Amino acid sequence: MLTLDEATGLTTAAQHAAADLGVPMSFAVMDAAGHLLSFARMDGAPWVSADVAQGKAWTAAAYGTPSAAQKDKMEPMPNFAAAITVMTHGKFTPQIGAVPVFRGETLLGAVGASGGTGEQDEAVCSTAVIESGLSTTR
Amino acid sequence: MLTLDEATGLTTAAQHAAADLGVPMSFAVMDAAGHLLSFARMDGAPWVSADVAQGKAWTAAAYGTPSAAQKDKMEPMPNFAAAITVMTHGKFTPQIGAVPVFRGETLLGAVGASGGTGEQDEAVCSTAVIESGLSTTR
Amino acid sequence: MLTLDEATGLTTAAQHAAADLGVPMSFAVMDAAGHLLSFARMDGAPWVSADVAQGKAWTAAAYGTPSAAQKDKMEPMPNFAAAITVMTHGKFTPQIGAVPVFRGETLLGAVGASGGTGEQDEAVCSTAVIESGLSTTR
Amino acid sequence: MLTLDEATGLTTAAQHAAADLGVPMSFAVMDAAGHLLSFARMDGAPWVSADVAQGKAWTAAAYGTPSAAQKDKMEPMPNFAAAITVMTHGKFTPQIGAVPVFRGETLLGAVGASGGTGEQDEAVCSTAVIESGLSTTR
Repeated sequence: MLTLDEATGLTTAAQHAAADLGVPMSFAVMDAAGHLLSFARMDGAPWVSADVAQGKAWTAAAYGTPSAAQKDKMEPMPNFAAAITVMTHGKFTPQIGAVPVFRGETLLGAVGASGGTGEQDEAVCSTAVIESGLSTTR
Repeated sequence: MLTLDEATGLTTAAQHAAADLGVPMSFAVMDAAGHLLSFARMDGAPWVSADVAQGKAWTAAAYGTPSAAQKDKMEPMPNFAAAITVMTHGKFTPQIGAVPVFRGETLLGAVGASGGTGEQDEAVCSTAVIESGLSTTR
Repeated sequence: MLTLDEATGLTTAAQHAAADLGVPMSFAVMDAAGHLLSFARMDGAPWVSADVAQGKAWTAAAYGTPSAAQKDKMEPMPNFAAAITVMTHGKFTPQIGAVPVFRGETLLGAVGASGGTGEQDEAVCSTAVIESGLSTTR
Repeated sequence: MLTLDEATGLTTAAQHAAADLGVPMSFAVMDAAGHLLSFARMDGAPWVSADVAQGKAWTAAAYGTPSAAQKDKMEPMPNFAAAITVMTHGKFTPQIGAVPVFRGETLLGAVGASGGTGEQDEAVCSTAVIESGLSTTR
């Protein structure tokens, strides 16, 4: 499991990466079961990004893949996507911007971002994971 | 009505079929009214598959047809699909992966799976029904 | 973590204990994060017991204590109890009838029952845990 | 408005105060509009405390008073309390454990905690606000 020190390290590293891009974002770190560990909303990031970052992180944790994989998979199945979103009370968010976090073979959780383009959000998350000595793949 | 012995037999048969495929899945067996009778999540299946398998089984029980039929029917009507999903609190799941269970002319319930491709999920459910001496059609 | 074999063993042991009492019940086994692993509804148990058993098991898993402890704690705080129930989308169920499952110091999950009196429900769950070689306390 | 530096300072100060008590907790800092700014779940705090801490912080931010004031006010009005909880989707949490954050006359937001007794949760929040050079009252 991720410690709080590790989870805080992930949100902090993500903030630095987003600051380098000049894009204010929200960041959420969840455990492997989809429960929140650490969160930060940067000055200037829209408040709705707080919910969206959490939804993306939840999605990456639930499937152990970048949330972008669910975006791609669900593109031809909008009705199925809507069903999963409703049955999970709005957590399922099939959109680019979150990555899973692995230590070796073990899924520890996920980090998600919102505030930039989806591509920027994901890049910042990936950078944070790698700079923390963890991995986004098994 | 399905007995618990029959419902448990369905989840067990489905597990064996999924193990043969090498794909960990969740399985839900519901009665004809859409209420849960038996459930099993295989080691290694994602926890989110627990909700999805139940949604598919609910959908097959509600209409007495494979949940794939609702996928096909709802494809040109996304707003209607979303409405049914929301009004049923996320139970309606128009996606392949569940089949109804009949004894003779009588609808007894449904079995749904999640964890593989939709086609794999449905195949495993169908196998379980047939091996249990029941039928997926009237 | 509980394996499916262990989770199925818990629901089966609970069924035998409830059959000894002559009371049909539903049983739910959840992992330590509150996600469903195994479920069985006995012949003659009311369908609404399916939801209630899951709510109780969730509550025991969330706090690592019998759900009865939440009943006692929340008795003088009905408004707080209602808030947690709503924020957890109906999962929080402060009522006797579920126990946590430990192996040594580790919380593995919880088993909950519904269908009898709360005391019967809890007794059946405790019996199942102990007969499975696990423990309801650290 | 609270900066992220200030919000992070509040969660960090709260962690130190909770560590002094030896009680693992979750902490949520919200802005004056009830939107999340910073969050941390300490190692060993139950995952359900993540939701409860946010509910309490939301309540303190919404009314500009400690969430305990809503507990007291709503004690004789359980139906009204339930209505507000449901209409706010579980955000309204009338329970001790969160305080508002003021700079001079201005309400900046709130900090909430969960994991200890309600009194411990509130004490840790108050300590964090005062150590951060801010105030819990106008």
